[in-house]
Amino acid sequence: MNRKLRIAMIGGGQGAFIGAIHRIAFSMDGHYQLVAGAFSADPVVSKKTGEELLLDPSRVYPTYQALIQGESKLPVQLRAEVISIVTPNHVHFDPAMMALEAGFHVVLEKPMTFSLEEARLLHEKVKSSHQSLMLCHTYTGYPMVKQARQLIEAGAIGEIRKVFVEYPQGWLHTYLEGSKQKQADWRTDPTRSGLGGAIGDIGTHAFNLAEYVTGLQVSRLCASVNTVVTGRKLDDDGAALLQFSNGASGVLMATQIAAGAENNISIRVYGDKGGLSWKQEDNNSLRLEWPGRPAECWRAGASYLSSNATHNTRTPAGHPEGYLEAFANLYRNFALTILAKENGATPAPAWIDFPGTVEGLRGMAFVETMIRSNKTQGWIDFIQ
Amino acid sequence: MNRKLRIAMIGGGQGAFIGAIHRIAFSMDGHYQLVAGAFSADPVVSKKTGEELLLDPSRVYPTYQALIQGESKLPVQLRAEVISIVTPNHVHFDPAMMALEAGFHVVLEKPMTFSLEEARLLHEKVKSSHQSLMLCHTYTGYPMVKQARQLIEAGAIGEIRKVFVEYPQGWLHTYLEGSKQKQADWRTDPTRSGLGGAIGDIGTHAFNLAEYVTGLQVSRLCASVNTVVTGRKLDDDGAALLQFSNGASGVLMATQIAAGAENNISIRVYGDKGGLSWKQEDNNSLRLEWPGRPAECWRAGASYLSSNATHNTRTPAGHPEGYLEAFANLYRNFALTILAKENGATPAPAWIDFPGTVEGLRGMAFVETMIRSNKTQGWIDFIQ
Amino acid sequence: MNRKLRIAMIGGGQGAFIGAIHRIAFSMDGHYQLVAGAFSADPVVSKKTGEELLLDPSRVYPTYQALIQGESKLPVQLRAEVISIVTPNHVHFDPAMMALEAGFHVVLEKPMTFSLEEARLLHEKVKSSHQSLMLCHTYTGYPMVKQARQLIEAGAIGEIRKVFVEYPQGWLHTYLEGSKQKQADWRTDPTRSGLGGAIGDIGTHAFNLAEYVTGLQVSRLCASVNTVVTGRKLDDDGAALLQFSNGASGVLMATQIAAGAENNISIRVYGDKGGLSWKQEDNNSLRLEWPGRPAECWRAGASYLSSNATHNTRTPAGHPEGYLEAFANLYRNFALTILAKENGATPAPAWIDFPGTVEGLRGMAFVETMIRSNKTQGWIDFIQ
Amino acid sequence: MNRKLRIAMIGGGQGAFIGAIHRIAFSMDGHYQLVAGAFSADPVVSKKTGEELLLDPSRVYPTYQALIQGESKLPVQLRAEVISIVTPNHVHFDPAMMALEAGFHVVLEKPMTFSLEEARLLHEKVKSSHQSLMLCHTYTGYPMVKQARQLIEAGAIGEIRKVFVEYPQGWLHTYLEGSKQKQADWRTDPTRSGLGGAIGDIGTHAFNLAEYVTGLQVSRLCASVNTVVTGRKLDDDGAALLQFSNGASGVLMATQIAAGAENNISIRVYGDKGGLSWKQEDNNSLRLEWPGRPAECWRAGASYLSSNATHNTRTPAGHPEGYLEAFANLYRNFALTILAKENGATPAPAWIDFPGTVEGLRGMAFVETMIRSNKTQGWIDFIQ
Repeated sequence: MNRKLRIAMIGGGQGAFIGAIHRIAFSMDGHYQLVAGAFSADPVVSKKTGEELLLDPSRVYPTYQALIQGESKLPVQLRAEVISIVTPNHVHFDPAMMALEAGFHVVLEKPMTFSLEEARLLHEKVKSSHQSLMLCHTYTGYPMVKQARQLIEAGAIGEIRKVFVEYPQGWLHTYLEGSKQKQADWRTDPTRSGLGGAIGDIGTHAFNLAEYVTGLQVSRLCASVNTVVTGRKLDDDGAALLQFSNGASGVLMATQIAAGAENNISIRVYGDKGGLSWKQEDNNSLRLEWPGRPAECWRAGASYLSSNATHNTRTPAGHPEGYLEAFANLYRNFALTILAKENGATPAPAWIDFPGTVEGLRGMAFVETMIRSNKTQGWIDFIQ
Repeated sequence: MNRKLRIAMIGGGQGAFIGAIHRIAFSMDGHYQLVAGAFSADPVVSKKTGEELLLDPSRVYPTYQALIQGESKLPVQLRAEVISIVTPNHVHFDPAMMALEAGFHVVLEKPMTFSLEEARLLHEKVKSSHQSLMLCHTYTGYPMVKQARQLIEAGAIGEIRKVFVEYPQGWLHTYLEGSKQKQADWRTDPTRSGLGGAIGDIGTHAFNLAEYVTGLQVSRLCASVNTVVTGRKLDDDGAALLQFSNGASGVLMATQIAAGAENNISIRVYGDKGGLSWKQEDNNSLRLEWPGRPAECWRAGASYLSSNATHNTRTPAGHPEGYLEAFANLYRNFALTILAKENGATPAPAWIDFPGTVEGLRGMAFVETMIRSNKTQGWIDFIQ
Repeated sequence: MNRKLRIAMIGGGQGAFIGAIHRIAFSMDGHYQLVAGAFSADPVVSKKTGEELLLDPSRVYPTYQALIQGESKLPVQLRAEVISIVTPNHVHFDPAMMALEAGFHVVLEKPMTFSLEEARLLHEKVKSSHQSLMLCHTYTGYPMVKQARQLIEAGAIGEIRKVFVEYPQGWLHTYLEGSKQKQADWRTDPTRSGLGGAIGDIGTHAFNLAEYVTGLQVSRLCASVNTVVTGRKLDDDGAALLQFSNGASGVLMATQIAAGAENNISIRVYGDKGGLSWKQEDNNSLRLEWPGRPAECWRAGASYLSSNATHNTRTPAGHPEGYLEAFANLYRNFALTILAKENGATPAPAWIDFPGTVEGLRGMAFVETMIRSNKTQGWIDFIQ
Repeated sequence: MNRKLRIAMIGGGQGAFIGAIHRIAFSMDGHYQLVAGAFSADPVVSKKTGEELLLDPSRVYPTYQALIQGESKLPVQLRAEVISIVTPNHVHFDPAMMALEAGFHVVLEKPMTFSLEEARLLHEKVKSSHQSLMLCHTYTGYPMVKQARQLIEAGAIGEIRKVFVEYPQGWLHTYLEGSKQKQADWRTDPTRSGLGGAIGDIGTHAFNLAEYVTGLQVSRLCASVNTVVTGRKLDDDGAALLQFSNGASGVLMATQIAAGAENNISIRVYGDKGGLSWKQEDNNSLRLEWPGRPAECWRAGASYLSSNATHNTRTPAGHPEGYLEAFANLYRNFALTILAKENGATPAPAWIDFPGTVEGLRGMAFVETMIRSNKTQGWIDFIQ
């Protein structure tokens, strides 16, 4: 580490769950220094959040436009370099485009945009810019998820035949938006969330996890997307039969009405030589199953792990890391990549292993494909 | 228990996995006495098996026809009363019909018949006869499965909204039938198994478990049925999106190519008040999840269980029972029902709680619906 | 199997938990036929139990003396061959000695006798007789316990260094004997139980498990034995530091006042190459831990198990067996041994692998050593 | 948060496992800014570490004495306020005393000192100073450990009767110090570790966890302390029978030769109404067991938790936190306490809930008591 990156936040004001998470995630490893923010659409909240975070008041902005413009005018060695956008979906595209155009690197919450069309434009923008964009598919930041990917890549379980991925949550099992609970309010509002409710919010995580771990792409699917809770305006539950590029089949489940369920995103993959499974609830373990010999439990921090899993672990086996560390891995790899490029070096493979617009575009296409398949009630090709 | 029922077996000769299982299951609680058998299509094997089982040689028959005829001729107080048919699917219907016509009670392995048409006929036959038929959906014999059913029936988790049921196996992940392995050989042969491979063999178990636990019926489904292993003649993998009679949705998975998987059939059900889950691998536990309060682990043999779960448990909590006891529960309840009826008594609700032709007919319709939906690649109504 | 052994029971009348367990255990595999019984000290109960079990009334006896005398007078080909004694501890020695003297094989509940002195006499008696005696240390009947023993014997985890064995129960956390609950009543009564309460009832199981799995003997120990519940006359809780014959150290815990605990006897053994652990609650799994490579989960019924584990399993991996099957394994091996000897054959090593008076004597010496160490509050040599 | 505390480190240079852990732990929540360090006894390593951490070179010191003197001379508003001492045990007392005398707050690794005598002096020093000292018993920083303590304090499981606490590790199962591996080298060296090896390194953690969770004190114990690996100079394995102030009994195990074991410190406590258990490996769960009703799984981040558990959690249920967050909880509570006192406010009970010299003194007395009991091979009173 030769220096800290200066980071600014759009969104993440007081009371926003994900804002505090981001700050922990980028503080943990010492690669970032928070220097500015437009923390809320409400300037008073933004100001108060800035004070709490001990920021220079001149760098706490009332709007994201003001932030981007204000920071742009500061001397290069002072101004923010990375802008982290943690707003609801309908305020992803505009600030991200504006930030990229103004020369900032961007961190963006998922799903990447409000619409597939926006996703395409943003993806093109990043490709043609000199900056980097990181998309917060946190679950691929877990070391044992990376281990799973490397094992599959190396052929450990053979040719993939079957993929089960699921994301059960229960927090929307009632009409929570009726009480204006902040998280529920915008996530169930099509004018702020976009086409997908649960499908966009957590379905994209499950989808991303499946494609990341297997290294395959979903080529066709057949979806069932439901709005279970009366009065809700967006889907809160869904499932799909999947077909992958290599012919493997799969099942994806994502629901927010599984009363009592927490957040146990999990995946199981079976190849022709064996199977593996990972659950977020027990994130430091990766189970490998083999025909004719005992199943194995691979553990984060152990000496036998792959380079990539090891790089994304801070503690020896038996010292549990979790969600915040997975998130911090994304931020750390993003910083290492930016700094390497800045120094004219080639980032290590483990560093550039963070989700970006390629994954974001796939995610938005997934939402669109799910919704369309549900309408036609049958199999359709994955929308490119 | 006022007397033991005399039982005869069709199938289950030396080397047949399921034959020995049945004998353990009906011996465990002392309600049956094995008196006769036609244990194999090969009379030599049948004879040898009979010898091993210490049977009177005159009651070891070369064919099932001979058994039914032979036993019928014996004096009432000597002849078999129950005939247990544990042959491959294509030899279910004929012996079952013949046995019923000759006045025997019947135990039948699942799936009930070779075809849906046979299932309908057999169901009608049982309805119009004075005998009883038990179908071996073993997994509904587990006490904690019964507890789950009773909790749902009593409204503990509210109106059902979501059902996940799965049955992953790995034993057919290679072309095992190529080596003539006995279990694989007939199960993958359409002339002996019928329309469904994995769908019939284990998909019907998963389907039955879902309907039994929820008390709901599947009304529509959309299936994907695959033959993954090259050279195989029947499906070895499948999944379906489900819709239930009350509007709940669900997902069913059944595969025999999940390399490394054993036999962990499991179910999760979510209602509007909470969720429950059960796994065969940990069959003595039932997990209840609740919004806003701690999840609970209900345990077989505990004092707080429902009447039905308690009736189907032999040991106090902490003394694990398993698959053989679940199987024995089916046989025991069947015996208690037969004996009660014989004595002119009304069998207790817990006694008549064993699967029969209603479940068998549903199962065969499930296979037919899965196959048809897979052909049309879309949702179809459940075939009645 | 060339014939069934004729078995009689002493104890195990209506309402006795363990009587029904024994009957299931010896019925399961078809090696025994119950022919006689003295089921209770109360002749009325004995008679009623015999009726329920469909026994010939002439072979239901009012006392164990009557049973042994009565059966002795029957023709050899009719009379019982094995007598299973499932009474409280103070009624172990006399009927066992009498049965052995009369030429019967004996099955005996644990702890073997009321006192160490009795244990020594019984052990000598068996050594000098032609009959066999099986002691019901059920937990060593589990296939994965046998697998653990064979792995250790083969040196898989190296030289043993550390042993943790524990048996937590909670059912005596209140003064249950105050309500005359049958199980509690005699187990907490020194005139019927002997020197040890929890130490004798479950401590001996833990001790036996440790010596069986490791193949080592405890040579010294330092015990703490407590009576926690007010009014209780015997210990209900204990622990000990152990030293084994090879210098390994260990810890044993056995308690019946762990409120909420069920019956999860478990063991962990560490050698200089790795460790293994087994818990009754998850009895079909055996966990192997290795420095520098992933932990493994060995599973009952799997193809890679040792001969002895396989012999003691009835179903393929994924079909859970449990406590009753472990118990049945003891009975089955005992029968196979008796029948082999009867035929002049050498029983297979897996058959003679059942606990007998050697283990019973060790168990009674364990109780005595624990009590004495507790009195002196320090380390003492294991009493020979 | 009104400002960040300025922190300096003694020890924790490149390659020191625990140094990086501390930096993550105090960075995570934004309450500290690292301003100075004497990172190694080797000034070159100290300098390089300082560079890596982007420190002002003038504040990277060659010795801890230089650090304390150097920082003392800086203006109050610039100089370090907290000194974190993460050196081997023999370099705890001197820098801690010197730092306290110079007016710094102190963070200290465990065990607190090299000897019990030092512990007494340090404890007196802190009592008579105006500064605070935090001792790194990380495991009491876990939210579910705090929940356990609060449940017991509130009487949820009744009067405590039995405590099992254990800490199995395997990393010292070979003569690792022979290879000069840094962690093993000093921990097995009596001139740097003190009286205890495993007993001091992890035994004190287990002991502290037991006293923290139960709110009881160990009053007597009977220990077995062993040096298992040939050539080792300190104990690597130990166990003790415990007696607590209220009469409860317990067992403590701590070993570093459990080959294959990671770091699964765990505790089980049984009262007269129920039991609870917690394992670091599954740190976000707390299991409650009850006689006559289902066991419960309480989960970190859930809405029903106690104030203290909630205060020490950053994410909602289902987003696993781990070891680093537990460590960060200690640092955060320490900062909140210091800042509150600085502002003349009374720190909240949850803030002052961090271990200090009281716990440190108990820990050192524990080591001394264990060693002495092992020598006398019997029960002794806990050394005050």
